[in-house]
Amino acid sequence: MSALLNGLAASNGIAIAPAYLLVGPDLSVNQQYSVNENHEVKRLHDSFALTLNEVQAIHQHAHATLGKRAAAVVDDQLAILKDRSLHAEIIEKINQEHLTAEWAIKKTADDRLKVLEKMNDNDYLSSRATAIKDVTKRILSHLMGVKLPDPTQLDHRAIFVAQNITPTDTAQFDRRFVAGLVTDEGGRTSHFTIMSKTLALPAVVGTQNATEVINDGDLLIVDGIHGKVIVRPSTEEVDHYQRLAAQFTREQQEWGALKDEQTVSTDGRHFKVVANVGTLADVVDARQNGAEGIGLVRSEFLYARDDHFPSENKQTKAYKQFLTEMSGQRVVVRTLDIGGDKELGSLNLPQENNPFLGFRAIRIGLARPEILRPQLRALLRSSVYGQLAIMFPMIATIEEFRQARQILDEERQRLIDEGVSVADGIEVGMMLEIPSSAVMADVFAREVDFFSIGSNDLIQYLFAADRGNSQVAYLYQELHPAVLRLVKQVIDAAHAEGKWVSMCGEMAGNPLATPLLMAMGLDEFSMNSSNILHIRSLINQLNTRQLQPLVHKAINAATASEVEQMIRQEVPQVLK
Amino acid sequence: MSALLNGLAASNGIAIAPAYLLVGPDLSVNQQYSVNENHEVKRLHDSFALTLNEVQAIHQHAHATLGKRAAAVVDDQLAILKDRSLHAEIIEKINQEHLTAEWAIKKTADDRLKVLEKMNDNDYLSSRATAIKDVTKRILSHLMGVKLPDPTQLDHRAIFVAQNITPTDTAQFDRRFVAGLVTDEGGRTSHFTIMSKTLALPAVVGTQNATEVINDGDLLIVDGIHGKVIVRPSTEEVDHYQRLAAQFTREQQEWGALKDEQTVSTDGRHFKVVANVGTLADVVDARQNGAEGIGLVRSEFLYARDDHFPSENKQTKAYKQFLTEMSGQRVVVRTLDIGGDKELGSLNLPQENNPFLGFRAIRIGLARPEILRPQLRALLRSSVYGQLAIMFPMIATIEEFRQARQILDEERQRLIDEGVSVADGIEVGMMLEIPSSAVMADVFAREVDFFSIGSNDLIQYLFAADRGNSQVAYLYQELHPAVLRLVKQVIDAAHAEGKWVSMCGEMAGNPLATPLLMAMGLDEFSMNSSNILHIRSLINQLNTRQLQPLVHKAINAATASEVEQMIRQEVPQVLK
Repeated sequence: MSALLNGLAASNGIAIAPAYLLVGPDLSVNQQYSVNENHEVKRLHDSFALTLNEVQAIHQHAHATLGKRAAAVVDDQLAILKDRSLHAEIIEKINQEHLTAEWAIKKTADDRLKVLEKMNDNDYLSSRATAIKDVTKRILSHLMGVKLPDPTQLDHRAIFVAQNITPTDTAQFDRRFVAGLVTDEGGRTSHFTIMSKTLALPAVVGTQNATEVINDGDLLIVDGIHGKVIVRPSTEEVDHYQRLAAQFTREQQEWGALKDEQTVSTDGRHFKVVANVGTLADVVDARQNGAEGIGLVRSEFLYARDDHFPSENKQTKAYKQFLTEMSGQRVVVRTLDIGGDKELGSLNLPQENNPFLGFRAIRIGLARPEILRPQLRALLRSSVYGQLAIMFPMIATIEEFRQARQILDEERQRLIDEGVSVADGIEVGMMLEIPSSAVMADVFAREVDFFSIGSNDLIQYLFAADRGNSQVAYLYQELHPAVLRLVKQVIDAAHAEGKWVSMCGEMAGNPLATPLLMAMGLDEFSMNSSNILHIRSLINQLNTRQLQPLVHKAINAATASEVEQMIRQEVPQVLK
Repeated sequence: MSALLNGLAASNGIAIAPAYLLVGPDLSVNQQYSVNENHEVKRLHDSFALTLNEVQAIHQHAHATLGKRAAAVVDDQLAILKDRSLHAEIIEKINQEHLTAEWAIKKTADDRLKVLEKMNDNDYLSSRATAIKDVTKRILSHLMGVKLPDPTQLDHRAIFVAQNITPTDTAQFDRRFVAGLVTDEGGRTSHFTIMSKTLALPAVVGTQNATEVINDGDLLIVDGIHGKVIVRPSTEEVDHYQRLAAQFTREQQEWGALKDEQTVSTDGRHFKVVANVGTLADVVDARQNGAEGIGLVRSEFLYARDDHFPSENKQTKAYKQFLTEMSGQRVVVRTLDIGGDKELGSLNLPQENNPFLGFRAIRIGLARPEILRPQLRALLRSSVYGQLAIMFPMIATIEEFRQARQILDEERQRLIDEGVSVADGIEVGMMLEIPSSAVMADVFAREVDFFSIGSNDLIQYLFAADRGNSQVAYLYQELHPAVLRLVKQVIDAAHAEGKWVSMCGEMAGNPLATPLLMAMGLDEFSMNSSNILHIRSLINQLNTRQLQPLVHKAINAATASEVEQMIRQEVPQVLK
């Protein structure tokens, strides 16, 4: 009998493959003393030998399949295993302090990790510490006679099943062998979910108990379209999903043909479908997915890598790369958006009772211009390499926008005085993500060059519901008439002043919202790259004039479910 | 030379009087052993004797000035001092364990308090524990030779200066001798601030360092109108403030004459000025201040007193008292509004990252109807004793309102089936405090009987700024055009359906907002009782028709400061 797990559809597509459990065994070490030192030393030697064999095999495998660079990561581990002083240190602990081999290794590793932590050199620290932790884990697993999951050993396509997967984990996957992902934890807007969309892997998150229900090697169907996982499916289920997967593949191919096409409704109205990105790799991905520009660069990714702020030069270089890669297409960079749920080690922010309603984004930028100014200078310096637009996050009042723009103008003048070239006509806009700004859109529209609607935050404030809080998540309703009314009001206000409007929240990539947004005249849809072609395909099939009555009905509806029903009924193309 | 302290004006009026520092000496006890037990026993006897004298004097004083009931509180303390077993216990600790008198007393008191805590009988516990703590403090002060502040000993009017004042503290004041209040801590919406408004005492909070700068007996001027404290003022300053105080008194008298008057604009439009209350004492206060009804009963006060929920009968009795006291005038009760910053010991709510955006108010009521149903039954049962209206807090979607109303209808039918009388025509409304509901006011207006605009929360969500967070408090702007637009939209939508609108946030008692709110047609202004007559006086001087152009200009302004300037210029009557 097959079993069904329900979760959140984190990334599109269907995968059918055996499960690969990424669940480590319990390697916790008891503080136990030994009476037989010789026995412990022998166990130590054996486990080192087994680990060395294992790591050498991984090294060869990595070298052959992933190349020199991947293999180099393993070099560190080999060096540790061959380090005689480490051996000596552990053996001394066994002989002098009568520790078991397990405890002696654990203590030695912990000591070394502590020293590394004090060294304050991050690149060295993290690679070296990872190597020590990994080797320790491997040795302990041999001492305890338990098996470690090792995705690099995998030689066939499998669906990874884990409690949770961190961004670091996904970066280490060999994409060739990862057919899909299933996790116990995670929500719709968790980092992992966003990451799996970028990887375009079928994924279902938040299943609660996948790692308990699924055994290693179980055949799985991951339905990343509807958020279902079928464990040990019947032949009929496999057949059914193979048909669905084929249909999905056809759609992907159909959409793939739109990669270099424009986005135009059947009545000839042009739209831009662009990408939200964090890193240069995302930008490359965006181009491959047919992005007509970048609607949101999350500049905080640049800051998150270090314990100190990136220098003006380092930032300039990064923005230049983004602009160059997009060769003349518009790139909208959002200035640093920290605070809220995004912390930054280098900035000691106070603990707050309600961080989402607290000191964040432009509020920090204006209170601490020494952080904002170098970023603006870097942006201005990079502006000659492409079509740059700058936007400020979390603008609540026109005074804040004026202040931010003044700082930008000051830095522009200063650069010009210094003889540095700065592009003309850099557009300056704002994130429209706070209800007060939506209500005052007509006033803002006179002074900004564009709006980018941040639907995630806007909806959360509109309903006074933290979208990360499962007890009130039901209030996060993208299709609610209150959301639609504000979005329409913002678009109308901008167009009345001849300004353009983008949307860069999750809603921009939700096909159910597409007919309404295009009929309201949203100029730019900015989303995760993996959704771009689907949304373009949808827009290309629809007629904005014919959709006007639907907009009218939707904003006069009472509930989100009424709106959803109307859309499904009147625009069958949105159905997947 | 006088010194000036700036703080927040927490309550109106001016007081000129000597300072009385409510700062206790350090009575912490060292864990010290004694070598001379006889000496310690003698010190113990002496301190008991001195304390007994002192408490007897307090008892006589309390009996003479405050009556039997106040004196009874001191009876408990006298009983403890005369308890021979207590004496014996302490002496044994001195003789057997060689403790100092201080430590022996401290240990004995702590032991007895621990026993009381386990008894789980709250009324007994709290009065008995308070008595033990108070006596211990007094004995220790004699042993240590330090003086305790004792407000009950005070025989002249003084300005109380403290780090912070809890609601319990204010309840113990002898109002005759408290001329004003100054605290180091506290913000505009802290409990103490709301409390001092209810007591109508001049108060300045959040001065940071009043207890350091001010000495006991220093002459002080507390300017509760502008949030200033002048320490050791010059003769000129005293003269100046005496004139201001006289003017304030004149205004108060002028306003006092309006106690039994109606609230009518000069063009004949009727308004209701009503009170926000928590307790029955507040209701009495409201009537004395000329309230034309109760616009908000904070029902959570009823729950906060116990570790368990109040029974349906207990609640029915309380609501009946409120309704009877208001003899036929409308009383609007808000159902339980917990979560956010209001915790309830009897309900184990999960820790949240953003409680203001979390599981609170009606969200809890709908998820846990076993809490909501008994409250609704109690309200329905009390409804025959006056004019009751019921409102639900934190309504974000029409589905929530429909669900809450259905539960109410079910309980009404159940009571009627049980043969219990329930009033006809109980109005059922909602707090309008979430932006989505303001945006959807037209849809809600078809189904509710009234709105009560909760401006505090509405503004906080509108600007995505926690009003309790000092780093973003600048975004809490009652006069911002975004606020005014939404308020106007709500009033217009309600009136289009023939429904009435109240406002029960701080903004309703802000005289600067009054001209705009009355011109927009707000039907009911609900506020702290101490503001009622001022607002009535203001409304009675103004003409709603003549104010229409001001409303138009205000909602088309760009900033809150532009609006404030317009009001001050065009409506000089708002100036205090």
